[in-house]
Amino acid sequence: MAAAQLHTRPVGIIGGMGPAAGADFVRLFVNACNAYLTRTGFKVVDQAYPEHWLVQVPVPDRTEALCNGHDAPLPALQNAVERLQTCGANTVAIACNTAHAWHTKLQQNHPRVELLHVAREVARQLKNTGVKEVGLMATQGTYRTALYDTALSQAGIVCHCPLDNERETLMRGIYQGVKTGDLAYARACFVNVAQRLQSRHGDLTLIMGCTEIPLALEDAPEASHWRLLNPAQVLAQALAERAYN
Amino acid sequence: MAAAQLHTRPVGIIGGMGPAAGADFVRLFVNACNAYLTRTGFKVVDQAYPEHWLVQVPVPDRTEALCNGHDAPLPALQNAVERLQTCGANTVAIACNTAHAWHTKLQQNHPRVELLHVAREVARQLKNTGVKEVGLMATQGTYRTALYDTALSQAGIVCHCPLDNERETLMRGIYQGVKTGDLAYARACFVNVAQRLQSRHGDLTLIMGCTEIPLALEDAPEASHWRLLNPAQVLAQALAERAYN
Repeated sequence: MAAAQLHTRPVGIIGGMGPAAGADFVRLFVNACNAYLTRTGFKVVDQAYPEHWLVQVPVPDRTEALCNGHDAPLPALQNAVERLQTCGANTVAIACNTAHAWHTKLQQNHPRVELLHVAREVARQLKNTGVKEVGLMATQGTYRTALYDTALSQAGIVCHCPLDNERETLMRGIYQGVKTGDLAYARACFVNVAQRLQSRHGDLTLIMGCTEIPLALEDAPEASHWRLLNPAQVLAQALAERAYN
Repeated sequence: MAAAQLHTRPVGIIGGMGPAAGADFVRLFVNACNAYLTRTGFKVVDQAYPEHWLVQVPVPDRTEALCNGHDAPLPALQNAVERLQTCGANTVAIACNTAHAWHTKLQQNHPRVELLHVAREVARQLKNTGVKEVGLMATQGTYRTALYDTALSQAGIVCHCPLDNERETLMRGIYQGVKTGDLAYARACFVNVAQRLQSRHGDLTLIMGCTEIPLALEDAPEASHWRLLNPAQVLAQALAERAYN
């Protein structure tokens, strides 16, 4: 039986930011495992999936902390890393782009855990596929920390950001839209900003750089021919590769 | 802030049977939490969700064990309960109908954990809504253990099961369909059996008594006017109620 030859190790996912995005991250991870099994010729059965843990914990608002210059989200994130490590997960993904502002501290404080970095994974994939220019849809916290700018510029990729009022529109879509369950409102906000980015910069790849954005934007009729990149999907693929390594 | 008055406690979910259904169970749980918050007038923000853990572990095939009279799935299930308990989860849901065959043993061996029971939760909800008669779509393992028959008959509800060849069709839809990722094939199998049940017993409520079935059946065009009941949704609601209690 092919499954018996598979080498897997437990991995962990920190979610709750928001919880719907965390649930969706598990779906993306499972899809990535299925794709791995299919690609490598293993039979796709329940027992061929690696052990994986999701913990969804209340974490103080990330963007609020970054805009006000404090580290309120850090203790909850640290606690989650430690508890996932206790569960045997030595590779961990954070299902929230903005929370990566604390990636360096978390990684320094937990040197034995491999903490994946969403923007570096995205930059690597974009570089591998020859993309030179992108638009970034994200939270104010993510813009403020230049999370993607750093990783993308190191990969030689130009990153276009929305204007101030457009960033506010994205924040409304995330907070008053997805986080409260009003996907129609969120969709309208995200479509609006995506269209403005495209009208200024052409038909470019759009990074949905907040895990809430794909939940409302991916199935928008307007987006059916857009080049949308879901960083959660890239991160889930990276996590699946580690789980099977 | 309303969220500060909320009392929550950590809950756990055992998944991996299959992993796509486990991921979907978290989605249903998050939706149930959102509905609870909305119904009780609390603001829906990330921090208002209870801490919850999902562990997806490889568990030996449940139906195979039941058809061959052994307990191979039990150790993995016990281990998952214990580890979720270590994480602080004292109420646990199993995101697999067939695995409830080991519910009594698991509950006996872990008396300090409240282990929810999917069929009892479904029977309670059906009784509350006045349903008198249902059709049951499930695995051979679930039919063999009479999981739903017992709970439903105690609630005074008549349960119609498919014929032998129809049960085989459901098994193909689950194993060669959903578990391998071929949702179109699964959908055809499930629609076929649902239509046969309805042609014999009329327009009755159909219990999708295997967590894989809703993944393919719920969005089938044929099913748009059927009365489908998703036990995972009922179980997720019960878990959310416990998490907020």
